[in-house]
Amino acid sequence: MAAREAFVTLATNDSYSLGALVLGHSLRNVGTTRALHVLITPGVTQAMRTQLSKVYDVVTLVDVLDSQDEANLALLSRPELGVTLTKLHAWNLTTYTKAVFLDADALVLQNVDELFDRDELSAAPDVGWPDCFNTGVFVFRPSTQTFHALIEHAVQKGSFDGGDQGLLNSFFSDWATTDIRKHLPFIYNMVATVVYSYAPAFKEYGKNVKIVHFLGSTKPWHQQAGPSTGSSAVLGNFLQMWWDLFNSHVRGQLEGNLAGLAGSF
Amino acid sequence: MAAREAFVTLATNDSYSLGALVLGHSLRNVGTTRALHVLITPGVTQAMRTQLSKVYDVVTLVDVLDSQDEANLALLSRPELGVTLTKLHAWNLTTYTKAVFLDADALVLQNVDELFDRDELSAAPDVGWPDCFNTGVFVFRPSTQTFHALIEHAVQKGSFDGGDQGLLNSFFSDWATTDIRKHLPFIYNMVATVVYSYAPAFKEYGKNVKIVHFLGSTKPWHQQAGPSTGSSAVLGNFLQMWWDLFNSHVRGQLEGNLAGLAGSF
Ligand SMILES: O=c1ccn([C@@H]2O[C@H](COP(=O)(O)OP(=O)(O)O)[C@@H](O)[C@H]2O)c(=O)[nH]1
Ligand SMILES: O=c1ccn([C@@H]2O[C@H](COP(=O)(O)OP(=O)(O)O)[C@@H](O)[C@H]2O)c(=O)[nH]1
Ligand SMILES: [Mn+2]
Ligand SMILES: [Mn+2]
Repeated sequence: MAAREAFVTLATNDSYSLGALVLGHSLRNVGTTRALHVLITPGVTQAMRTQLSKVYDVVTLVDVLDSQDEANLALLSRPELGVTLTKLHAWNLTTYTKAVFLDADALVLQNVDELFDRDELSAAPDVGWPDCFNTGVFVFRPSTQTFHALIEHAVQKGSFDGGDQGLLNSFFSDWATTDIRKHLPFIYNMVATVVYSYAPAFKEYGKNVKIVHFLGSTKPWHQQAGPSTGSSAVLGNFLQMWWDLFNSHVRGQLEGNLAGLAGSF
Repeated sequence: MAAREAFVTLATNDSYSLGALVLGHSLRNVGTTRALHVLITPGVTQAMRTQLSKVYDVVTLVDVLDSQDEANLALLSRPELGVTLTKLHAWNLTTYTKAVFLDADALVLQNVDELFDRDELSAAPDVGWPDCFNTGVFVFRPSTQTFHALIEHAVQKGSFDGGDQGLLNSFFSDWATTDIRKHLPFIYNMVATVVYSYAPAFKEYGKNVKIVHFLGSTKPWHQQAGPSTGSSAVLGNFLQMWWDLFNSHVRGQLEGNLAGLAGSF
Protein backbone atom coordinates (compact mmCIF):
# COMPACT_ATOMS: atom_id res chain seq x y z
CA MET A 1 0.00 0.00 0.00
CA ALA A 2 1.29 3.41 -0.85
CA ALA A 3 2.17 5.72 1.99
CA ARG A 4 -0.69 7.97 3.08
CA GLU A 5 1.45 10.62 4.77
CA ALA A 6 4.74 12.21 3.80
CA PHE A 7 7.32 14.85 4.53
CA VAL A 8 7.71 17.03 1.46
CA THR A 9 10.46 19.42 0.47
CA LEU A 10 11.48 21.36 -2.62
CA ALA A 11 14.74 22.00 -4.46
CA THR A 12 14.97 23.98 -7.70
CA ASN A 13 18.73 23.64 -8.12
CA ASP A 14 21.73 21.61 -6.95
CA SER A 15 22.57 24.06 -4.21
CA TYR A 16 19.21 23.70 -2.41
CA SER A 17 19.43 19.97 -3.16
CA LEU A 18 22.36 19.78 -0.74
CA GLY A 19 19.98 21.07 1.91
CA ALA A 20 17.33 18.57 0.87
CA LEU A 21 19.85 15.72 1.14
CA VAL A 22 20.87 16.64 4.67
CA LEU A 23 17.22 17.23 5.63
CA GLY A 24 16.28 13.80 4.28
CA HIS A 25 19.06 12.09 6.23
CA SER A 26 18.07 13.99 9.38
CA LEU A 27 14.52 12.60 9.01
CA ARG A 28 15.86 9.06 8.50
CA ASN A 29 18.11 9.43 11.54
CA VAL A 30 15.21 10.22 13.85
CA GLY A 31 13.37 7.18 12.55
CA THR A 32 10.36 8.71 10.87
CA THR A 33 7.73 6.22 9.73
CA ARG A 34 6.43 8.54 7.01
CA ALA A 35 7.43 8.76 3.35
CA LEU A 36 9.98 11.32 2.18
CA HIS A 37 9.10 13.19 -0.98
CA VAL A 38 11.11 15.84 -2.78
CA LEU A 39 9.82 18.13 -5.52
CA ILE A 40 12.44 19.22 -8.03
CA THR A 41 12.46 21.41 -11.10
CA PRO A 42 14.51 20.99 -14.29
CA GLY A 43 17.32 23.04 -12.72
CA VAL A 44 18.43 20.02 -10.69
CA THR A 45 21.11 17.97 -12.52
CA GLN A 46 20.70 14.29 -13.29
CA ALA A 47 23.57 13.39 -10.96
CA MET A 48 21.84 15.22 -8.11
CA ARG A 49 18.51 13.57 -8.85
CA THR A 50 20.24 10.22 -8.42
CA GLN A 51 21.52 11.32 -5.01
CA LEU A 52 18.12 12.59 -3.93
CA SER A 53 16.48 9.31 -4.91
CA LYS A 54 18.79 7.46 -2.48
CA VAL A 55 17.32 9.17 0.56
CA TYR A 56 13.86 10.26 -0.67
CA ASP A 57 11.20 7.65 -1.42
CA VAL A 58 9.87 9.78 -4.25
CA VAL A 59 11.44 12.45 -6.42
CA THR A 60 8.90 14.36 -8.50
CA LEU A 61 9.77 16.72 -11.30
CA VAL A 62 7.49 19.74 -11.42
CA ASP A 63 7.61 22.43 -14.02
CA VAL A 64 5.44 25.38 -13.29
CA LEU A 65 5.41 26.62 -16.86
CA ASP A 66 4.07 23.40 -18.32
CA SER A 67 1.91 22.11 -15.57
CA GLN A 68 -1.20 24.20 -15.21
CA ASP A 69 -3.04 26.80 -17.21
CA GLU A 70 -3.61 28.79 -14.06
CA ALA A 71 0.02 28.62 -13.16
CA ASN A 72 0.98 29.93 -16.55
CA LEU A 73 -1.40 32.78 -16.20
CA ALA A 74 -0.08 33.62 -12.79
CA LEU A 75 3.45 33.58 -14.02
CA LEU A 76 2.60 35.89 -16.87
CA SER A 77 0.94 38.48 -14.69
CA ARG A 78 3.08 37.93 -11.60
CA PRO A 79 6.55 36.97 -12.79
CA GLU A 80 8.01 37.45 -9.32
CA LEU A 81 6.06 34.50 -7.97
CA GLY A 82 7.95 31.75 -9.79
CA VAL A 83 9.51 29.76 -6.95
CA THR A 84 6.45 30.51 -4.80
CA LEU A 85 4.15 28.76 -7.22
CA THR A 86 6.53 25.83 -7.33
CA LYS A 87 6.10 25.34 -3.58
CA LEU A 88 2.33 25.34 -4.07
CA HIS A 89 2.70 22.16 -6.15
CA ALA A 90 2.95 20.31 -2.85
CA TRP A 91 -0.87 20.53 -2.72
CA ASN A 92 -1.00 18.38 -5.86
CA LEU A 93 0.50 15.37 -4.05
CA THR A 94 -2.94 13.91 -3.51
CA THR A 95 -1.71 10.37 -2.98
CA TYR A 96 -1.18 11.60 0.59
CA THR A 97 -4.06 12.42 2.87
CA LYS A 98 -1.79 14.67 4.90
CA ALA A 99 1.71 16.03 4.52
CA VAL A 100 4.28 18.18 6.27
CA PHE A 101 6.23 20.61 4.13
CA LEU A 102 9.79 21.36 5.25
CA ASP A 103 12.06 23.93 3.64
CA ALA A 104 15.28 22.44 2.26
CA ASP A 105 17.18 24.60 4.77
CA ALA A 106 15.57 22.83 7.73
CA LEU A 107 17.27 20.22 9.93
CA VAL A 108 15.32 17.74 12.03
CA LEU A 109 16.87 17.00 15.45
CA GLN A 110 14.15 14.82 17.02
CA ASN A 111 11.32 12.69 15.66
CA VAL A 112 8.42 14.94 14.68
CA ASP A 113 5.91 12.40 13.38
CA GLU A 114 3.37 13.77 15.84
CA LEU A 115 2.99 16.71 13.44
CA PHE A 116 0.62 14.51 11.42
CA ASP A 117 -1.90 14.81 14.27
CA ARG A 118 -2.35 18.46 13.28
CA ASP A 119 -4.66 19.83 10.61
CA GLU A 120 -4.19 22.18 7.69
CA LEU A 121 -2.84 24.78 8.02
CA SER A 122 -0.63 24.36 11.06
CA ALA A 123 2.61 26.30 11.31
CA ALA A 124 4.79 28.16 13.80
CA PRO A 125 4.81 31.94 14.23
CA ASP A 126 7.24 34.02 12.21
CA VAL A 127 9.64 36.03 14.35
CA GLY A 128 9.36 39.05 12.05
CA TRP A 129 5.62 39.55 12.47
CA PRO A 130 4.35 36.82 14.80
CA ASP A 131 0.70 36.96 13.66
CA CYS A 132 2.05 35.51 10.43
CA PHE A 133 3.16 31.92 10.30
CA ASN A 134 6.53 30.99 8.89
CA THR A 135 6.26 28.77 5.82
CA GLY A 136 9.46 26.82 6.44
CA VAL A 137 7.47 24.10 8.27
CA PHE A 138 3.75 23.51 7.79
CA VAL A 139 1.13 20.78 7.93
CA PHE A 140 -1.29 20.63 5.00
CA ARG A 141 -3.81 18.43 3.16
CA PRO A 142 -2.95 17.83 -0.48
CA SER A 143 -5.93 18.76 -2.63
CA THR A 144 -6.09 19.88 -6.24
CA GLN A 145 -9.02 22.08 -5.29
CA THR A 146 -6.91 23.90 -2.73
CA PHE A 147 -4.08 24.12 -5.26
CA HIS A 148 -6.37 25.84 -7.75
CA ALA A 149 -7.73 28.17 -5.09
CA LEU A 150 -4.17 29.11 -4.13
CA ILE A 151 -3.23 29.84 -7.73
CA GLU A 152 -6.37 31.89 -8.15
CA HIS A 153 -5.54 33.81 -4.97
CA ALA A 154 -1.99 34.42 -6.26
CA VAL A 155 -3.31 35.76 -9.55
CA GLN A 156 -5.91 37.98 -7.91
CA LYS A 157 -4.01 39.29 -4.93
CA GLY A 158 -0.33 38.53 -5.48
CA SER A 159 1.83 38.04 -2.43
CA PHE A 160 2.49 40.88 0.01
CA ASP A 161 6.10 39.78 0.43
CA GLY A 162 6.63 38.47 -3.08
CA GLY A 163 7.08 34.93 -1.72
CA ASP A 164 5.09 31.94 -0.61
CA GLN A 165 4.85 33.20 2.96
CA GLY A 166 2.88 36.31 2.05
CA LEU A 167 0.60 34.33 -0.22
CA LEU A 168 -0.10 31.50 2.23
CA ASN A 169 -0.68 33.92 5.10
CA SER A 170 -3.22 35.92 3.16
CA PHE A 171 -4.92 32.70 1.99
CA PHE A 172 -5.02 31.04 5.43
CA SER A 173 -5.77 34.40 6.98
CA ASP A 174 -7.50 33.18 10.14
CA TRP A 175 -4.41 31.36 11.41
CA ALA A 176 -3.59 34.01 14.03
CA THR A 177 -7.02 34.12 15.61
CA THR A 178 -8.93 30.87 15.21
CA ASP A 179 -7.40 27.63 16.50
CA ILE A 180 -4.50 27.32 18.91
CA ARG A 181 -3.83 23.76 17.70
CA LYS A 182 -2.79 25.26 14.38
CA HIS A 183 -0.04 27.18 16.13
CA LEU A 184 2.87 24.79 16.07
CA PRO A 185 5.19 25.28 19.01
CA PHE A 186 8.20 27.31 18.01
CA ILE A 187 10.45 24.29 18.67
CA TYR A 188 9.14 22.86 15.38
CA ASN A 189 10.56 25.76 13.40
CA MET A 190 13.22 27.41 15.43
CA VAL A 191 14.80 30.08 13.35
CA ALA A 192 18.51 29.83 13.99
CA THR A 193 18.96 33.60 14.40
CA VAL A 194 16.68 33.72 17.44
CA VAL A 195 19.66 32.63 19.46
CA TYR A 196 20.69 36.27 19.44
CA SER A 197 17.40 38.09 19.83
CA TYR A 198 16.15 36.57 23.10
CA ALA A 199 19.02 34.50 24.44
CA PRO A 200 17.48 33.72 27.87
CA ALA A 201 14.43 32.14 26.21
CA PHE A 202 16.70 30.07 24.01
CA LYS A 203 18.59 28.96 27.11
CA GLU A 204 15.31 28.01 28.80
CA TYR A 205 13.55 26.29 25.90
CA GLY A 206 16.29 25.59 23.35
CA LYS A 207 16.96 22.08 24.59
CA ASN A 208 13.50 21.06 23.35
CA VAL A 209 14.10 22.19 19.78
CA LYS A 210 13.03 19.58 17.22
CA ILE A 211 13.55 21.41 13.93
CA VAL A 212 16.11 24.13 13.23
CA HIS A 213 15.45 26.38 10.26
CA PHE A 214 18.43 28.18 8.70
CA LEU A 215 16.30 31.03 7.40
CA GLY A 216 17.97 33.91 5.61
CA SER A 217 20.41 34.38 2.80
CA THR A 218 23.33 32.47 4.31
CA LYS A 219 22.60 28.76 4.22
CA PRO A 220 24.59 26.05 6.01
CA TRP A 221 26.04 24.87 2.70
CA HIS A 222 27.38 28.40 2.15
CA GLN A 223 29.56 28.32 5.24
CA GLN A 224 31.82 25.96 7.09
CA ALA A 225 31.07 25.15 10.70
CA GLY A 226 33.68 25.57 13.41
CA PRO A 227 35.50 28.41 15.09
CA SER A 228 35.38 30.58 11.97
CA THR A 229 31.59 30.98 12.33
CA GLY A 230 32.56 32.99 15.35
CA SER A 231 29.89 35.05 16.96
CA SER A 232 27.65 32.41 18.46
CA ALA A 233 28.72 29.08 19.88
CA VAL A 234 25.10 27.92 19.97
CA LEU A 235 24.39 28.79 16.37
CA GLY A 236 27.73 27.18 15.52
CA ASN A 237 26.46 24.02 17.22
CA PHE A 238 23.47 23.76 14.90
CA LEU A 239 25.67 24.44 11.91
CA GLN A 240 28.03 21.74 13.13
CA MET A 241 25.12 19.27 13.29
CA TRP A 242 24.25 20.10 9.70
CA TRP A 243 27.86 19.58 8.62
CA ASP A 244 28.22 16.37 10.62
CA LEU A 245 25.29 14.92 8.69
CA PHE A 246 26.64 16.26 5.43
CA ASN A 247 30.08 14.78 6.04
CA SER A 248 28.89 11.42 7.30
CA HIS A 249 26.01 10.75 4.92
CA VAL A 250 26.23 13.01 1.89
CA ARG A 251 29.74 14.10 0.96
CA GLY A 252 31.12 10.61 0.19
CA GLN A 253 28.23 9.89 -2.16
CA LEU A 254 28.68 12.96 -4.28
CA GLU A 255 30.88 13.09 -7.35
CA GLY A 256 33.62 15.69 -7.29
CA ASN A 257 31.82 18.63 -8.81
CA LEU A 258 28.68 18.16 -6.70
CA ALA A 259 30.63 17.76 -3.46
CA GLY A 260 32.43 20.96 -4.32
CA LEU A 261 29.16 22.89 -4.24
CA ALA A 262 29.09 22.90 -0.46
CA GLY A 263 31.17 25.55 1.16
CA SER A 264 32.25 26.97 -2.20
CA PHE A 265 29.76 29.82 -2.44
CA MET B 1 -19.14 54.25 42.01
CA ALA B 2 -15.47 53.54 41.67
CA ALA B 3 -14.21 52.36 38.30
CA ARG B 4 -14.17 48.61 37.90
CA GLU B 5 -11.62 48.47 35.09
CA ALA B 6 -8.41 50.36 34.49
CA PHE B 7 -5.30 50.77 32.40
CA VAL B 8 -2.28 50.43 34.67
CA THR B 9 1.32 51.44 34.15
CA LEU B 10 4.46 51.75 36.25
CA ALA B 11 7.21 54.34 36.65
CA THR B 12 10.04 54.01 39.14
CA ASN B 13 11.77 57.28 38.24
CA ASP B 14 11.20 60.60 36.50
CA SER B 15 12.58 59.33 33.23
CA TYR B 16 10.03 56.53 32.84
CA SER B 17 7.41 58.97 34.15
CA LEU B 18 7.84 60.95 30.93
CA GLY B 19 6.77 57.81 29.12
CA ALA B 20 3.86 57.33 31.48
CA LEU B 21 2.71 60.91 30.88
CA VAL B 22 2.69 60.52 27.11
CA LEU B 23 1.04 57.09 27.42
CA GLY B 24 -1.68 58.56 29.64
CA HIS B 25 -2.38 61.38 27.19
CA SER B 26 -2.47 58.90 24.31
CA LEU B 27 -5.15 56.93 26.16
CA ARG B 28 -7.16 60.12 26.82
CA ASN B 29 -6.84 61.12 23.16
CA VAL B 30 -8.45 57.92 21.95
CA GLY B 31 -11.34 58.44 24.34
CA THR B 32 -10.97 55.48 26.68
CA THR B 33 -13.84 55.03 29.13
CA ARG B 34 -11.66 53.19 31.64
CA ALA B 35 -9.70 54.57 34.60
CA LEU B 36 -6.00 55.38 34.27
CA HIS B 37 -3.81 54.21 37.13
CA VAL B 38 -0.07 54.64 37.56
CA LEU B 39 2.09 52.82 40.09
CA ILE B 40 5.13 54.77 41.23
CA THR B 41 8.00 54.13 43.64
CA PRO B 42 9.78 56.63 45.90
CA GLY B 43 12.24 57.38 43.08
CA VAL B 44 9.64 59.60 41.39
CA THR B 45 9.97 63.25 42.48
CA GLN B 46 7.11 65.19 44.02
CA ALA B 47 6.95 67.53 41.04
CA MET B 48 6.58 64.58 38.70
CA ARG B 49 3.89 63.00 40.88
CA THR B 50 1.91 66.21 40.50
CA GLN B 51 2.20 65.96 36.72
CA LEU B 52 1.17 62.30 36.71
CA SER B 53 -1.90 63.06 38.80
CA LYS B 54 -3.11 65.50 36.12
CA VAL B 55 -3.55 62.76 33.54
CA TYR B 56 -3.92 59.64 35.69
CA ASP B 57 -7.04 59.15 37.83
CA VAL B 58 -5.01 57.41 40.50
CA VAL B 59 -1.33 57.54 41.42
CA THR B 60 -0.31 54.83 43.87
CA LEU B 61 3.00 54.71 45.67
CA VAL B 62 4.31 51.19 46.02
CA ASP B 63 7.43 50.27 47.88
CA VAL B 64 8.44 46.70 47.44
CA LEU B 65 10.64 46.69 50.49
CA ASP B 66 7.92 47.72 52.90
CA SER B 67 4.86 46.21 51.41
CA GLN B 68 4.92 42.46 51.81
CA ASP B 69 6.81 39.90 53.81
CA GLU B 70 7.00 37.69 50.74
CA ALA B 71 8.32 40.50 48.65
CA ASN B 72 11.03 41.18 51.19
CA LEU B 73 12.02 37.57 51.15
CA ALA B 74 12.15 37.48 47.40
CA LEU B 75 14.26 40.57 47.26
CA LEU B 76 16.71 39.15 49.75
CA SER B 77 17.21 35.91 47.87
CA ARG B 78 16.74 37.29 44.37
CA PRO B 79 18.07 40.84 44.39
CA GLU B 80 17.94 41.03 40.60
CA LEU B 81 14.17 40.91 40.60
CA GLY B 82 13.58 44.35 42.09
CA VAL B 83 11.71 46.16 39.31
CA THR B 84 10.06 42.89 38.30
CA LEU B 85 8.39 42.53 41.67
CA THR B 86 7.26 46.11 41.48
CA LYS B 87 5.35 45.34 38.29
CA LEU B 88 3.67 42.43 40.07
CA HIS B 89 2.08 44.95 42.45
CA ALA B 90 -0.45 45.56 39.69
CA TRP B 91 -2.19 42.38 40.89
CA ASN B 92 -2.85 44.11 44.21
CA LEU B 93 -5.15 46.68 42.59
CA THR B 94 -8.20 44.67 43.60
CA THR B 95 -10.62 47.57 43.35
CA TYR B 96 -10.64 46.61 39.66
CA THR B 97 -12.20 43.40 38.44
CA LYS B 98 -10.02 43.53 35.36
CA ALA B 99 -7.08 45.61 34.19
CA VAL B 100 -4.74 46.11 31.28
CA PHE B 101 -1.09 46.68 32.06
CA LEU B 102 0.84 48.87 29.65
CA ASP B 103 4.58 49.53 29.83
CA ALA B 104 5.44 53.20 30.22
CA ASP B 105 7.21 53.00 26.83
CA ALA B 106 3.96 52.15 25.04
CA LEU B 107 1.93 54.59 22.91
CA VAL B 108 -1.76 54.05 22.15
CA LEU B 109 -2.81 55.05 18.62
CA GLN B 110 -6.43 53.82 18.55
CA ASN B 111 -9.03 53.05 21.20
CA VAL B 112 -8.27 49.63 22.71
CA ASP B 113 -11.09 49.34 25.27
CA GLU B 114 -12.09 46.03 23.65
CA LEU B 115 -9.08 44.53 25.45
CA PHE B 116 -11.28 44.30 28.55
CA ASP B 117 -13.28 41.55 26.80
CA ARG B 118 -10.24 39.29 27.18
CA ASP B 119 -9.31 37.20 30.18
CA GLU B 120 -6.17 36.77 32.25
CA LEU B 121 -3.56 36.29 30.96
CA SER B 122 -3.89 37.73 27.47
CA ALA B 123 -0.85 39.15 25.73
CA ALA B 124 0.81 39.36 22.33
CA PRO B 125 3.70 37.12 21.21
CA ASP B 126 7.25 38.25 21.80
CA VAL B 127 9.26 38.61 18.60
CA GLY B 128 12.35 37.12 20.24
CA TRP B 129 10.78 33.75 21.09
CA PRO B 130 7.15 33.86 19.92
CA ASP B 131 5.91 31.09 22.24
CA CYS B 132 6.56 33.60 24.99
CA PHE B 133 4.28 36.57 25.40
CA ASN B 134 5.65 40.07 25.65
CA THR B 135 4.85 41.71 28.99
CA GLY B 136 4.62 45.24 27.65
CA VAL B 137 0.83 44.87 27.21
CA PHE B 138 -1.28 42.33 29.08
CA VAL B 139 -4.80 41.78 30.39
CA PHE B 140 -5.05 40.51 33.97
CA ARG B 141 -7.37 40.09 36.95
CA PRO B 142 -6.15 41.84 40.09
CA SER B 143 -6.10 39.33 42.96
CA THR B 144 -4.00 39.26 46.10
CA GLN B 145 -3.99 35.49 45.87
CA THR B 146 -2.42 35.62 42.43
CA PHE B 147 0.02 38.24 43.68
CA HIS B 148 1.16 35.91 46.46
CA ALA B 149 1.42 32.98 44.08
CA LEU B 150 3.55 35.09 41.74
CA ILE B 151 5.88 36.12 44.55
CA GLU B 152 6.15 32.52 45.70
CA HIS B 153 6.95 31.49 42.13
CA ALA B 154 9.61 34.20 41.92
CA VAL B 155 11.20 33.02 45.15
CA GLN B 156 11.14 29.36 44.16
CA LYS B 157 12.07 29.55 40.50
CA GLY B 158 13.46 33.01 39.85
CA SER B 159 13.03 34.42 36.37
CA PHE B 160 14.74 32.87 33.37
CA ASP B 161 15.48 36.29 31.91
CA GLY B 162 15.94 38.15 35.17
CA GLY B 163 12.84 40.25 34.44
CA ASP B 164 9.09 40.17 34.70
CA GLN B 165 8.71 38.59 31.26
CA GLY B 166 10.56 35.41 32.21
CA LEU B 167 8.67 35.16 35.48
CA LEU B 168 5.20 35.75 34.02
CA ASN B 169 5.83 33.34 31.15
CA SER B 170 6.88 30.54 33.46
CA PHE B 171 3.89 31.26 35.75
CA PHE B 172 1.31 31.47 32.92
CA SER B 173 3.08 28.65 31.14
CA ASP B 174 0.15 27.38 29.08
CA TRP B 175 -0.26 30.63 27.17
CA ALA B 176 1.33 29.27 23.99
CA THR B 177 -0.82 26.15 23.74
CA THR B 178 -4.20 26.59 25.40
CA ASP B 179 -6.48 29.41 24.29
CA ILE B 180 -6.19 31.43 21.10
CA ARG B 181 -8.27 34.25 22.66
CA LYS B 182 -5.39 34.86 25.04
CA HIS B 183 -3.14 35.61 22.08
CA LEU B 184 -3.62 39.31 21.56
CA PRO B 185 -3.15 40.32 17.95
CA PHE B 186 0.30 41.76 17.41
CA ILE B 187 -1.24 45.14 16.58
CA TYR B 188 -1.85 45.55 20.33
CA ASN B 189 1.85 45.40 21.09
CA MET B 190 3.74 46.19 17.97
CA VAL B 191 7.38 46.33 18.82
CA ALA B 192 8.77 49.31 16.95
CA THR B 193 11.86 47.45 15.71
CA VAL B 194 9.76 44.97 13.72
CA VAL B 195 9.62 47.58 11.02
CA TYR B 196 13.04 46.33 9.97
CA SER B 197 12.74 42.58 10.44
CA TYR B 198 9.76 41.84 8.18
CA ALA B 199 9.04 45.06 6.35
CA PRO B 200 6.44 43.61 3.89
CA ALA B 201 4.29 42.38 6.80
CA PHE B 202 4.52 45.81 8.40
CA LYS B 203 3.47 47.35 5.10
CA GLU B 204 0.51 44.95 4.90
CA TYR B 205 -0.70 45.09 8.50
CA GLY B 206 0.98 48.16 9.98
CA LYS B 207 -1.95 50.48 9.27
CA ASN B 208 -3.99 48.52 11.83
CA VAL B 209 -1.54 49.04 14.68
CA LYS B 210 -3.23 50.17 17.88
CA ILE B 211 -0.36 50.17 20.36
CA VAL B 212 3.30 50.78 19.57
CA HIS B 213 5.83 49.55 22.10
CA PHE B 214 9.26 51.19 22.13
CA LEU B 215 10.97 48.12 23.54
CA GLY B 216 14.72 48.16 24.05
CA SER B 217 17.29 50.37 25.65
CA THR B 218 16.65 53.51 23.59
CA LYS B 219 13.36 55.06 24.63
CA PRO B 220 11.54 57.85 22.79
CA TRP B 221 12.48 60.32 25.52
CA HIS B 222 16.14 59.49 24.87
CA GLN B 223 16.05 60.68 21.29
CA GLN B 224 14.60 63.45 19.22
CA ALA B 225 12.30 62.64 16.34
CA GLY B 226 12.94 63.94 12.88
CA PRO B 227 15.47 63.43 10.11
CA SER B 228 18.25 62.72 12.60
CA THR B 229 16.65 59.38 13.52
CA GLY B 230 17.67 58.43 10.05
CA SER B 231 17.42 54.79 9.12
CA SER B 232 13.68 54.27 9.09
CA ALA B 233 11.05 56.75 8.07
CA VAL B 234 8.33 54.52 9.50
CA LEU B 235 9.95 54.13 12.87
CA GLY B 236 10.59 57.86 12.76
CA ASN B 237 6.86 58.35 12.24
CA PHE B 238 6.01 56.56 15.47
CA LEU B 239 8.69 58.49 17.29
CA GLN B 240 7.22 61.68 15.85
CA MET B 241 3.80 60.76 17.21
CA TRP B 242 5.31 60.26 20.66
CA TRP B 243 7.03 63.65 20.45
CA ASP B 244 3.93 65.37 19.10
CA LEU B 245 2.03 64.25 22.19
CA PHE B 246 4.92 65.19 24.44
CA ASN B 247 5.20 68.64 22.92
CA SER B 248 1.48 69.39 22.83
CA HIS B 249 0.40 67.93 26.17
CA VAL B 250 3.38 67.41 28.44
CA ARG B 251 6.29 69.76 27.83
CA GLY B 252 4.47 72.97 28.69
CA GLN B 253 3.32 71.55 32.00
CA LEU B 254 6.74 70.56 33.23
CA GLU B 255 8.98 72.83 35.22
CA GLY B 256 12.36 73.53 33.68
CA ASN B 257 14.35 70.70 35.16
CA LEU B 258 11.72 68.07 34.44
CA ALA B 259 11.20 69.20 30.86
CA GLY B 260 14.93 68.99 30.40
CA LEU B 261 14.84 65.27 31.13
CA ALA B 262 13.49 64.49 27.69
CA GLY B 263 16.09 64.33 24.98
CA SER B 264 18.88 64.97 27.42
CA PHE B 265 19.98 61.40 27.98
O1 LIG C 1 16.13 29.18 -5.33
C1 LIG C 1 15.42 28.55 -4.53
C2 LIG C 1 14.79 29.18 -3.44
C3 LIG C 1 14.04 28.42 -2.57
N1 LIG C 1 13.87 27.08 -2.78
C4 LIG C 1 13.01 26.28 -1.88
O2 LIG C 1 12.15 27.16 -1.17
C5 LIG C 1 12.46 27.15 0.23
C6 LIG C 1 12.30 28.55 0.80
O3 LIG C 1 13.40 29.37 0.45
P1 LIG C 1 14.48 29.77 1.58
O4 LIG C 1 14.64 28.64 2.55
O5 LIG C 1 15.73 30.23 0.87
O6 LIG C 1 13.77 31.00 2.26
P2 LIG C 1 13.97 31.50 3.80
O7 LIG C 1 13.55 30.35 4.68
O8 LIG C 1 15.42 31.84 3.98
O9 LIG C 1 13.05 32.67 3.90
C7 LIG C 1 13.86 26.58 0.29
O10 LIG C 1 14.20 26.05 1.56
C8 LIG C 1 13.81 25.54 -0.79
O11 LIG C 1 13.08 24.40 -0.37
C9 LIG C 1 14.49 26.46 -3.85
O12 LIG C 1 14.37 25.25 -4.01
N2 LIG C 1 15.25 27.22 -4.70
O1 LIG D 1 13.93 51.46 35.62
C1 LIG D 1 12.80 51.12 35.25
C2 LIG D 1 12.61 50.05 34.36
C3 LIG D 1 11.32 49.73 33.98
N1 LIG D 1 10.25 50.39 34.48
C4 LIG D 1 8.89 50.01 34.10
O2 LIG D 1 8.91 48.68 33.62
C5 LIG D 1 8.56 48.67 32.22
C6 LIG D 1 9.39 47.63 31.49
O3 LIG D 1 10.69 48.11 31.25
P1 LIG D 1 11.15 48.52 29.78
O4 LIG D 1 9.98 49.09 29.05
O5 LIG D 1 12.38 49.38 29.90
O6 LIG D 1 11.56 47.11 29.17
P2 LIG D 1 11.49 46.69 27.60
O7 LIG D 1 10.05 46.83 27.18
O8 LIG D 1 12.41 47.60 26.86
O9 LIG D 1 11.95 45.26 27.63
C7 LIG D 1 8.78 50.09 31.76
O10 LIG D 1 8.05 50.40 30.58
C8 LIG D 1 8.30 50.85 32.97
O11 LIG D 1 6.88 50.83 33.05
C9 LIG D 1 10.43 51.45 35.34
O12 LIG D 1 9.48 52.08 35.77
N2 LIG D 1 11.71 51.77 35.71
MN1 LIG E 1 13.97 28.39 4.62
MN1 LIG F 1 8.71 48.30 27.41
